[in-house]
Amino acid sequence: MLQQLSLIGKDERGGITRLAASDADKEARDLVIQWMKEEALIIHIDRIGNIIAVRDGIENSKPVMTGSHIDTVVSGGMYDGCYGVLAGLEVIKTLNEFNIKTRYPIALAVFTNEEGIRYTPDMMGSLVFSGGLKAEKAMKSIGVDGSILENELKRIGYMGDLQVGALIPSSYVELHIEQGPILEIKGLNIGVVENLQGISWKEIILTGESNHAGTTPLIYRKDAGLAAAKIINYLSDLCSSVGGSQVATCGKVIFEPNVINVVPGKVKMTIDLRNSSEEGLKHAENLLHSFLEQLAEYESIDIKINQLVRLQPVQFDGTMTQIIERVNNRLGLTYLKMTSGAGHDAQMLARICPTAMIFVPSKGGISHNPNEYTSTQDIENGANVLLNTILELSNKI
Amino acid sequence: MLQQLSLIGKDERGGITRLAASDADKEARDLVIQWMKEEALIIHIDRIGNIIAVRDGIENSKPVMTGSHIDTVVSGGMYDGCYGVLAGLEVIKTLNEFNIKTRYPIALAVFTNEEGIRYTPDMMGSLVFSGGLKAEKAMKSIGVDGSILENELKRIGYMGDLQVGALIPSSYVELHIEQGPILEIKGLNIGVVENLQGISWKEIILTGESNHAGTTPLIYRKDAGLAAAKIINYLSDLCSSVGGSQVATCGKVIFEPNVINVVPGKVKMTIDLRNSSEEGLKHAENLLHSFLEQLAEYESIDIKINQLVRLQPVQFDGTMTQIIERVNNRLGLTYLKMTSGAGHDAQMLARICPTAMIFVPSKGGISHNPNEYTSTQDIENGANVLLNTILELSNKI
Repeated sequence: MLQQLSLIGKDERGGITRLAASDADKEARDLVIQWMKEEALIIHIDRIGNIIAVRDGIENSKPVMTGSHIDTVVSGGMYDGCYGVLAGLEVIKTLNEFNIKTRYPIALAVFTNEEGIRYTPDMMGSLVFSGGLKAEKAMKSIGVDGSILENELKRIGYMGDLQVGALIPSSYVELHIEQGPILEIKGLNIGVVENLQGISWKEIILTGESNHAGTTPLIYRKDAGLAAAKIINYLSDLCSSVGGSQVATCGKVIFEPNVINVVPGKVKMTIDLRNSSEEGLKHAENLLHSFLEQLAEYESIDIKINQLVRLQPVQFDGTMTQIIERVNNRLGLTYLKMTSGAGHDAQMLARICPTAMIFVPSKGGISHNPNEYTSTQDIENGANVLLNTILELSNKI
Repeated sequence: MLQQLSLIGKDERGGITRLAASDADKEARDLVIQWMKEEALIIHIDRIGNIIAVRDGIENSKPVMTGSHIDTVVSGGMYDGCYGVLAGLEVIKTLNEFNIKTRYPIALAVFTNEEGIRYTPDMMGSLVFSGGLKAEKAMKSIGVDGSILENELKRIGYMGDLQVGALIPSSYVELHIEQGPILEIKGLNIGVVENLQGISWKEIILTGESNHAGTTPLIYRKDAGLAAAKIINYLSDLCSSVGGSQVATCGKVIFEPNVINVVPGKVKMTIDLRNSSEEGLKHAENLLHSFLEQLAEYESIDIKINQLVRLQPVQFDGTMTQIIERVNNRLGLTYLKMTSGAGHDAQMLARICPTAMIFVPSKGGISHNPNEYTSTQDIENGANVLLNTILELSNKI
């Protein structure tokens, strides 16, 4: 199923470009729904286009939910999101095949616009599903291509009528590739995700003075590029000072005028700070701000800071992670209790029900890239952990 | 004359955009030639479009030459180049007005494409004039707009018939704004330019690995952006180590993929090294290369270096600078013997005759910018130094 789904939206770089509510997204949704129907699931589509496929339980109660997303970044890989959805489907196939009944219903979700490439914010479908954003507001989002999400959902036939709050899960477990290198480096099978890093994205605008590179002595310069370099250099010290899970990245830098023989007068740059502890993240932000204040004075540069994104860390449910640990032990799989550095639909679901995640290794930690890869063995391991976790949660008869 | 010339090519940012062999350049040339003819000068146009206007001396010998250029960068100022040409014209006007005869002829040159914005290389006209580049080759240059210089020179009527070498000056003196802050900061009237910095332009390509900013621990990263920051930070140490007139600038940086939450996998950056001593410049290049080698190993980054431009320092003529010093003393003007950090037509002329330059202050060191400014008093001071220097060189009767 993973292979077949990966053919939809294949681009010339060998990656998959299947942006939310695009033609390729429609084609992928249609295929997944066809597979869901083959397993006799009842399909619901909500206002924001989330697909919720339900397998009845013996009791008519809140379902145990699993799922993820099938939209991709530009030229992404075939595992990110799709693995979680299709492993959920595989779990249901297996239950059907062995005619296993569960006390509680099982729901499989495909959330709209998780990647947030075409419409902002990311994890939009799960955010709406969890009541964090009104569907009406989300549907008005204007895409990078100028499209309006509402029109695009109607166009591809995925604006449904299930209302937000009409279907609340009793618990949510999401299986995902790690998208980082830790499991592979440590040689472990499974990540039991206890929490999700908080994120602080800042844009920093440095204004110095453009000057001729040949005629301006160093002491008379107000070099915004040099100040930017000092900030980048400081980030590893900042991480050491904060300790714990703190990471810091400068991913984006734009020099002005960006000419070989001109001292850069202006730099726009971004800083991405992440920490699994809110206290730690705040500490990191404070350290960065103090550093920037001192730097502005020392380098005679004007420094402006814009907060772009601020998400608090998310703590997953302890009982849920204990169940996953038990399953790993039973299956003889090695595992690591870990923090997710990336955002996932699960963090939105954690607002409304006990939630946890299961990770499998990503080769080289590579993701959002055609070279994203997880071995067949790891794919199978993860699906088995998901199966057994769902069996426990849904109270198998 | 400066004010009037500045109206040609005026752009909406208030600057002057008068690229070589453009319509605006033709209009400016026509105006300057009209003024030259009003002073009864004999006009020659050479193959590459250089204008050489000659005022006869008593003897039919090699002329004393002054001049500069009237092409500009995109949205440049009104003094760069034009000041040297029009001050030369003012000198000739003054000689005519007072009916002063000189033993040697005086030539006023307007060199083609000094800025090198539309066609490469810069200082093209003076380079061809001095025999450093064949006119036939230069004329085949393809512009950034796809035009061929030869066609454009014909189109604007400035491909002349004066052959290279037909007119060799006995000496060359060029008056120019400093384009740097030193004279203003030191509160001096005039710069006596003894030499011109050698230039080494390098492109550095750093290849690490793109990774997710949230999921990749710092120790597993190959962060090309961090390596770039370390290079920029190193430049001031490099300048201290080399000492003397050494300056180093990183003016251009391009991150890939340049996305907020991705560790940059690739960086292209440039380094501009300048020193008035060839030995010093070589030392700086060697230090930079050693640093890059160590950095590549330490950061596990691949580093590739491309040499883009390499110009040796130019030493001006000692007798010429002594004459200019004497003139300053006689006129009661304060002065500094200094190095030019920028390239000028004079560096090409130094290949074929004794050459020197005279600088006047640039407010705030600003140039290549609509805010370029030199006070009327400084304009007058410089023109008086040029007048008296030319009178000495041309052996006034």
